[in-house]
Amino acid sequence: MAENAPRPRGASPFPPLRVGILGATGAVGQKMVKLLSGHPWFRVVRLMGSARSAGLRYGDAVRWLEPTPLPSWARDLPVEEAAPSEECDFVFSALESGAARELEGVFSWAGIPVISNAGAHRLLPSVPLLVPEVNPDHADRLGDLPEGRGFIVANPNCSTTGLVLALKPLLDECPVERIMVTTLQAVSGAGYPGVPSMDILGNTIPTIPGEEEKLEEEPLKVFGEMAEEGFRPARMTISAQTNRVPVLDGHLLSVSLEFSRPMTPARANSVIEGFRSPLEGLGLPSAPSRPVILCPDPDGPQPRLHSNACGGMSVSVGRLRPCPVLDLRFVALVHNTVRGAAGGAILNAEFLRARGWLRERRA
Amino acid sequence: MAENAPRPRGASPFPPLRVGILGATGAVGQKMVKLLSGHPWFRVVRLMGSARSAGLRYGDAVRWLEPTPLPSWARDLPVEEAAPSEECDFVFSALESGAARELEGVFSWAGIPVISNAGAHRLLPSVPLLVPEVNPDHADRLGDLPEGRGFIVANPNCSTTGLVLALKPLLDECPVERIMVTTLQAVSGAGYPGVPSMDILGNTIPTIPGEEEKLEEEPLKVFGEMAEEGFRPARMTISAQTNRVPVLDGHLLSVSLEFSRPMTPARANSVIEGFRSPLEGLGLPSAPSRPVILCPDPDGPQPRLHSNACGGMSVSVGRLRPCPVLDLRFVALVHNTVRGAAGGAILNAEFLRARGWLRERRA
Amino acid sequence: MAENAPRPRGASPFPPLRVGILGATGAVGQKMVKLLSGHPWFRVVRLMGSARSAGLRYGDAVRWLEPTPLPSWARDLPVEEAAPSEECDFVFSALESGAARELEGVFSWAGIPVISNAGAHRLLPSVPLLVPEVNPDHADRLGDLPEGRGFIVANPNCSTTGLVLALKPLLDECPVERIMVTTLQAVSGAGYPGVPSMDILGNTIPTIPGEEEKLEEEPLKVFGEMAEEGFRPARMTISAQTNRVPVLDGHLLSVSLEFSRPMTPARANSVIEGFRSPLEGLGLPSAPSRPVILCPDPDGPQPRLHSNACGGMSVSVGRLRPCPVLDLRFVALVHNTVRGAAGGAILNAEFLRARGWLRERRA
Amino acid sequence: MAENAPRPRGASPFPPLRVGILGATGAVGQKMVKLLSGHPWFRVVRLMGSARSAGLRYGDAVRWLEPTPLPSWARDLPVEEAAPSEECDFVFSALESGAARELEGVFSWAGIPVISNAGAHRLLPSVPLLVPEVNPDHADRLGDLPEGRGFIVANPNCSTTGLVLALKPLLDECPVERIMVTTLQAVSGAGYPGVPSMDILGNTIPTIPGEEEKLEEEPLKVFGEMAEEGFRPARMTISAQTNRVPVLDGHLLSVSLEFSRPMTPARANSVIEGFRSPLEGLGLPSAPSRPVILCPDPDGPQPRLHSNACGGMSVSVGRLRPCPVLDLRFVALVHNTVRGAAGGAILNAEFLRARGWLRERRA
Repeated sequence: MAENAPRPRGASPFPPLRVGILGATGAVGQKMVKLLSGHPWFRVVRLMGSARSAGLRYGDAVRWLEPTPLPSWARDLPVEEAAPSEECDFVFSALESGAARELEGVFSWAGIPVISNAGAHRLLPSVPLLVPEVNPDHADRLGDLPEGRGFIVANPNCSTTGLVLALKPLLDECPVERIMVTTLQAVSGAGYPGVPSMDILGNTIPTIPGEEEKLEEEPLKVFGEMAEEGFRPARMTISAQTNRVPVLDGHLLSVSLEFSRPMTPARANSVIEGFRSPLEGLGLPSAPSRPVILCPDPDGPQPRLHSNACGGMSVSVGRLRPCPVLDLRFVALVHNTVRGAAGGAILNAEFLRARGWLRERRA
Repeated sequence: MAENAPRPRGASPFPPLRVGILGATGAVGQKMVKLLSGHPWFRVVRLMGSARSAGLRYGDAVRWLEPTPLPSWARDLPVEEAAPSEECDFVFSALESGAARELEGVFSWAGIPVISNAGAHRLLPSVPLLVPEVNPDHADRLGDLPEGRGFIVANPNCSTTGLVLALKPLLDECPVERIMVTTLQAVSGAGYPGVPSMDILGNTIPTIPGEEEKLEEEPLKVFGEMAEEGFRPARMTISAQTNRVPVLDGHLLSVSLEFSRPMTPARANSVIEGFRSPLEGLGLPSAPSRPVILCPDPDGPQPRLHSNACGGMSVSVGRLRPCPVLDLRFVALVHNTVRGAAGGAILNAEFLRARGWLRERRA
Repeated sequence: MAENAPRPRGASPFPPLRVGILGATGAVGQKMVKLLSGHPWFRVVRLMGSARSAGLRYGDAVRWLEPTPLPSWARDLPVEEAAPSEECDFVFSALESGAARELEGVFSWAGIPVISNAGAHRLLPSVPLLVPEVNPDHADRLGDLPEGRGFIVANPNCSTTGLVLALKPLLDECPVERIMVTTLQAVSGAGYPGVPSMDILGNTIPTIPGEEEKLEEEPLKVFGEMAEEGFRPARMTISAQTNRVPVLDGHLLSVSLEFSRPMTPARANSVIEGFRSPLEGLGLPSAPSRPVILCPDPDGPQPRLHSNACGGMSVSVGRLRPCPVLDLRFVALVHNTVRGAAGGAILNAEFLRARGWLRERRA
Repeated sequence: MAENAPRPRGASPFPPLRVGILGATGAVGQKMVKLLSGHPWFRVVRLMGSARSAGLRYGDAVRWLEPTPLPSWARDLPVEEAAPSEECDFVFSALESGAARELEGVFSWAGIPVISNAGAHRLLPSVPLLVPEVNPDHADRLGDLPEGRGFIVANPNCSTTGLVLALKPLLDECPVERIMVTTLQAVSGAGYPGVPSMDILGNTIPTIPGEEEKLEEEPLKVFGEMAEEGFRPARMTISAQTNRVPVLDGHLLSVSLEFSRPMTPARANSVIEGFRSPLEGLGLPSAPSRPVILCPDPDGPQPRLHSNACGGMSVSVGRLRPCPVLDLRFVALVHNTVRGAAGGAILNAEFLRARGWLRERRA
């Protein structure tokens, strides 16, 4: 199967960086292991887990959830307790929020950059909340940080990532003032073991703790402007209602927007169609050619059929039509554990590598 | 099991009416058969189906979908082709829209009242779109119709029924100007065979043909005023986004409202809590004591747990909270095949019976 | 809703016994609370849970999983730590195996009979493994126990219960020598939180820890003979393969049997049809009139449609046909949390009450 | 995306054959379109469908069910009515049984070989029932057929394919006399629209029309010997019980075997582990390197996790253990629409191409 040797996706412009994964045995950590298998720029050298797993082979410590086999290079790596080490040029954090709050700071203080999927530090003024196709300039914040220290760069919550990518082409065209969004979220967003089957089989749950707050706050930072003191939130108002549904992967968002100027569905359509990734030309291995695509299926986008567009890295948009209450309505779909989590973090790291924020730490 | 003899739910104030069911073999027709089993006011005497089923015993013609046994009285009834007959004092229509368009008129013209669940005639000026706890006065329209003719009374679409019931207590308190609603709808709403399993297992579908139009139009008629020419639509604007989810029964609605005056969640809560059914005292066998209830579960309402409140006849409301974009948000749940279809039609018939619009046709 | 006052299911022949429930907050404990609500013979006076729940109101301690409301009498009862008390005439045990191993002995030694659903003591020589329609005489074992001590009576595992009930009419007719059974088991059999949704959504799992052993051993005791030293296992051989499926309630069993004499499907059919419950005439409130029924649906039995036969207390059998390898094949369905757990335990208690093994403990 | 140009899977030893697909718009037909996209040996030139679809572009005629986009080369091909034509060197048949009964003969008589997934002709003496890793010699039957005529080669039913592949290594070691198999079958096995969601959501159905007969008969032909008059069925007895489960893809089989000599699980394990594909060295593009693999997951094989082993072309076996009733038990998993249908047919065609039975028809 896949080897941990760099894949020949064209010649790599850099010698590969040595990477650690915090929370490697969890669902997001596993997805990182899978997506980093054979990555041309990054080479996983440390898998870190809880004290309970530490010392075990990764293959023994993990309850592997992916439908592809556990990569052989990872199977035999030992799980280690989370601690900064000279071995890693940077680490990915797939930690749960509680552990992230503590450990990400430890690594960062020790000079090790943390590319985090966790929610713990997303709203800190020193932490760029980065979706590189949306707010690449936010990475410049890292230039203000003290030399020799690490840093934390976070990707937003899975639903937020879907929302901001879907909005980006439209916002480039015209400011948005008010947003209503109702989500239908997959169970994989709750991690493992996560949602008990007795709660969700043949059922939907109209509440996900903390999720609505994230969806209402995080986009304001992503679309905000860098300022002296941090990131000045964008001026827009968001109302989010979140639902859990019996779907494995793929968050669906019913969105309605109010623009500051009229925007027809036809215009919105062509704006999305014409959107080009600002990452084009950087050669980032995980960057989708089209980060936002119009779903070709009139009954879509649907999680089962369209979540994997561009390997799960593209957000699909469909059913653009006028909204009788606000201006424009549509449906968006994001692969919550790829683009909305592990893949989003990896793309962030690639972007920061290309921009020079991540590099070899050894003399 | 259940017999077709009247149930002893208190003494019946009327001799039972003789009832036919149009579309008796379909999913809604079956639910009617189940709910009318042992009904104290109505006695099913004719089960009508398509030409294909006609002549068969009902037990042989039907693919019984209910988790309770097919009532023995119905098993042996013959399925007959739909045709007006002196045997029925009125008929229930569980027809699909196409068949309803044709047949409901035939029965009505023949002097046989039609209590319909179908969408075909809901927006006709002569047809009350009735939810008796919401717009009982709309039945008075029947007084304008020519003597000796039948009439059609329809209940709204399943999602609409949930929405208007949830709104009723709030609207009694304060006018609503704008409504955003996103639905998560059960597969039983599409009838049988309906949604193929390959489309919906582990999936959600962000479109239901014709459903959004119904949700945006029907409430305006329900909340409208009777006028010379028909029903003057209420002045409110609705935006509906509808999704199909892998749930068997129970439509969930994420609702957001803009009132013409401020309304706090606390006020909304107490308004709903204090809402009393206008049907109290009429002794209608299927009327729920509380047509709108506040869900006691903070994670609710959920289809699996709460759809059956009051035998599926009550709408559950939960998570009342402020909306950053409009004024108030909440979640509502309606049992789509009971309150939203068969049970709603039966309650309409009971109400019309109590009010004298339905009565024995024989001399 | 339901009250804890005795239901008027005919006059109760006994003053109600005072009952405690061990493990009252778990899934099976909740089902007991629901089924004992208004029970004419038993009155729940103590709800016992883990140290973590103790001191809370039951309504606050429990994550209520039933689709009917938490009975109001239970909501306000305090959860107490498990300890024998004079207040209870006997206790039901809905404990997990580990806790049961310890606590059931404590209660029994303290003189309090334990009617257990747990697996911990099922194979002990002093513990009758009772399905009262199958081996009512096994209760006589209690006569050998020292006076003044409590005792433990267990019902078998949920799948075993389904199997032995389906077999009983056939075994009465002819000995069975070899049994092959493959199960499709609902998630509720694993308790709560139980099976993670990520494991079972759109999936099946071909292993359930410990389940095959139970299915291969327990029936031998149920069909065994009481002997000096305990229960002499029946002479039959069972091979069980167990699968978890994404179904909420209802275990389905594909069974194949080898008889010691030929048995045609027609004969098997009439044997099952003619089977009469040996409990007839005892007036047990939870005893189904027909503990084993032939499913009328040629495509059944199916969990969604037929699990609730006789309130979930009957086992449905279908598709009786010859087996090319052994003699006879069929499909059986048991409601795993009613007949296979809470309801089975309650029926055991009713039977033991009627036989005099359970009675008031106060002077 | 994928192009219809040959994939560079090593140099192709043959110029590509021109292929038609019968039943191209159905679920199996779609899977064929997907799997043949870019195939190095075969080039799809005609997509044939029912009269209703004929004339439409394939992209308009099909309700595309695959989670990858409809290949662009197929989107614009016209759907044609099924009729033999000089354009095709051979055709794949993804027809339903009724249509296959008629049409496959038409093509075959017209001199066009038919590689069929349909059940219609599987048991005909002139039709090899081929799984090339199991009974490659059965293709030699084609040598007995009249020159210039076409022929039909069928792959077995999806469950049968899984069973015979799992059995092959064991049978090579020791004859099997009796087989018990209970299946848990995915909904995709019933085609589209296939199983209504109301029948299968949160449910299992213990019967699949015609399936048990196929599982009991077809393996006897596959393992049989070619004889003058056709294929002499193998001497073994099979008892099959089949269940439909709410799984999208992947049939799971609980199998129990009686051998003519003792066989330990350890021996069975090493026999399977040591099994080498007889197709090795032929360079067939779709042949899995290991057609039967031992599932590394002790809780497997599971449909969601392991169906896609080797692109869905390998059968996974797990839980080998002694059977108390027969000799050996295990669980097997087959991807029903890949190895069990479209992929199995394509592999058959590749094998027949390599052996020279399929070739260019033009002078």
